[in-house]
Amino acid sequence: MTLPALIALDWGTTSLRAYLLGSDGVALDTRTSSAGIMNLPAGGFDQAFEDTCGVWLDAHAPLRAQLPVIAAGMVGSAQGWIEAPYVETPAGADALVAGIVTVKTARGVIVHIAPGVLEQGALPNVMRGEETQIFGALFGEPALGGTSGALIGLPGTHAKWAFVADERIERFYTFMTGETFSALRDHTILGRTMHPGATHDEPAFLRGVDTARDAGQAGLLATIFSTRTLGLTGQLSAEQQPDYLSGILIGHELRGLNEVLARQQSSLAGRTLRLIGNDALCKRYRAALARFGCHDAPTVAHATERGLYRIAALAGLIAAPVRAA
Amino acid sequence: MTLPALIALDWGTTSLRAYLLGSDGVALDTRTSSAGIMNLPAGGFDQAFEDTCGVWLDAHAPLRAQLPVIAAGMVGSAQGWIEAPYVETPAGADALVAGIVTVKTARGVIVHIAPGVLEQGALPNVMRGEETQIFGALFGEPALGGTSGALIGLPGTHAKWAFVADERIERFYTFMTGETFSALRDHTILGRTMHPGATHDEPAFLRGVDTARDAGQAGLLATIFSTRTLGLTGQLSAEQQPDYLSGILIGHELRGLNEVLARQQSSLAGRTLRLIGNDALCKRYRAALARFGCHDAPTVAHATERGLYRIAALAGLIAAPVRAA
Repeated sequence: MTLPALIALDWGTTSLRAYLLGSDGVALDTRTSSAGIMNLPAGGFDQAFEDTCGVWLDAHAPLRAQLPVIAAGMVGSAQGWIEAPYVETPAGADALVAGIVTVKTARGVIVHIAPGVLEQGALPNVMRGEETQIFGALFGEPALGGTSGALIGLPGTHAKWAFVADERIERFYTFMTGETFSALRDHTILGRTMHPGATHDEPAFLRGVDTARDAGQAGLLATIFSTRTLGLTGQLSAEQQPDYLSGILIGHELRGLNEVLARQQSSLAGRTLRLIGNDALCKRYRAALARFGCHDAPTVAHATERGLYRIAALAGLIAAPVRAA
Repeated sequence: MTLPALIALDWGTTSLRAYLLGSDGVALDTRTSSAGIMNLPAGGFDQAFEDTCGVWLDAHAPLRAQLPVIAAGMVGSAQGWIEAPYVETPAGADALVAGIVTVKTARGVIVHIAPGVLEQGALPNVMRGEETQIFGALFGEPALGGTSGALIGLPGTHAKWAFVADERIERFYTFMTGETFSALRDHTILGRTMHPGATHDEPAFLRGVDTARDAGQAGLLATIFSTRTLGLTGQLSAEQQPDYLSGILIGHELRGLNEVLARQQSSLAGRTLRLIGNDALCKRYRAALARFGCHDAPTVAHATERGLYRIAALAGLIAAPVRAA
């Protein structure tokens, strides 16, 4: 039986996912709560940590040795428990380790918080939490971090697309796809004619993707209106409209990514990449990517806990191989 | 003194603007209310009409002749007072007249409601109210409607850009710029770091426009995130962020329009066009258009009442010249 070796926290804006990891990095237990940093009262971090991880700490107490704790995500932001200032691109795992900031809980436990990554420039970019997932993917598949570079997508509220090479995050883009979808659906006229469908409507979704790909030159602000007009003209049912709009937005994200790649004499077509995220959303992105000619975009499993485990190992919090076997 | 000749209603989603026009088409009185069609209770049209125009009708009653009433806008939609089905592009003023639908009020007054315009196609487009404003602009400046064609922009919640030629609306685009701005500001993370500025911050606005123009290839979903990251990195104050985001969105609208024009071997640069809308917003668009090389975009005054007056004349509701002098 593997003994607990590390508590690893993925502590974001809307949720807290806690992993009790064994010495081999495999999760022995997992707890999820809605104690994201935006849902906590002032000073609520300590209590949320106790509520989520206290039972693990209690069970481990007789073993005398402190169970190390590592965290990543918005918990290290200016609105978080304690600020772990961003490290700048190009950023390797060593830079993340060097940027770890600690906070001591009421119980006396030291929580190690990994920093996020900042890309300076005319249009700066930031990530918190995704960098740890990216290193989780790289540790699990070292070839990804080679000199030829790789592209990793992290769909979500704020989707990230990161270019990694030489085991470093070289640069990345943020697309506010998920949050914009929710805002348009819930707070514009587009939502008024929609009914949520019982199931994902794949043809409606792909129609939206194709619209963005083939007729998206006027931009998102123009194409989204077709959600309404295709409904008005009887070409899109109320149940199809949410998936169509989702397809339009994800389609514009991929169209934009393709434009970025075009300036590097590259393209999504025929490219190999990796996705990190929940299965349903990654599946949706894979279907959309296929419309852009990209047919090799598997989801990386366990990227979050693997990344936290490896950062903890590099930081000397646990005795473990710092490189994948 | 000019006698009242026509009640003209611009009845939209959120407001009702009523004009009492003299026989020369000039407004003798104007009343504005928040009785837009979305703000009315079921069956509330008759009461809203009475509340707004009753005083004019009462004053006119001793003159015996019925004061004709014409309306345009969402009042003719499926959610309106009575539906005036869309007429299709290319649409001239004669088609609008042929599509007028009437409703009789409790008082016995006949309200003539002009239809909107529909452009069929893979991405259909619709307008209601703007077509009347466009014909108001054409009647006032007949050269605009010539065979060489003109481009007319109507900034707003759902901005329209219409190509007109031979006195007909040939085709048009809708950009959900205003409504998307409100949804992003009020219902995404971008609003959390914003403070409304006391005055319009022109440099911040133009910075947003330039960002969309010069770095917008990744698309709107990517560029809007810079509102947040420029704040995080101390390059954009909380007060500057609303105008910056507004600039990004209007910049993407014009970038998209420029892409549409490029496919016609044309461009905004050096082009002459017309704007219809409120002065502050048109001024903002003129500043943005200048960043795309377009320096000739005056606002057409009185397009709404002029359009309603001329449609009424063409329909024989009033005795008036149907062509501008």
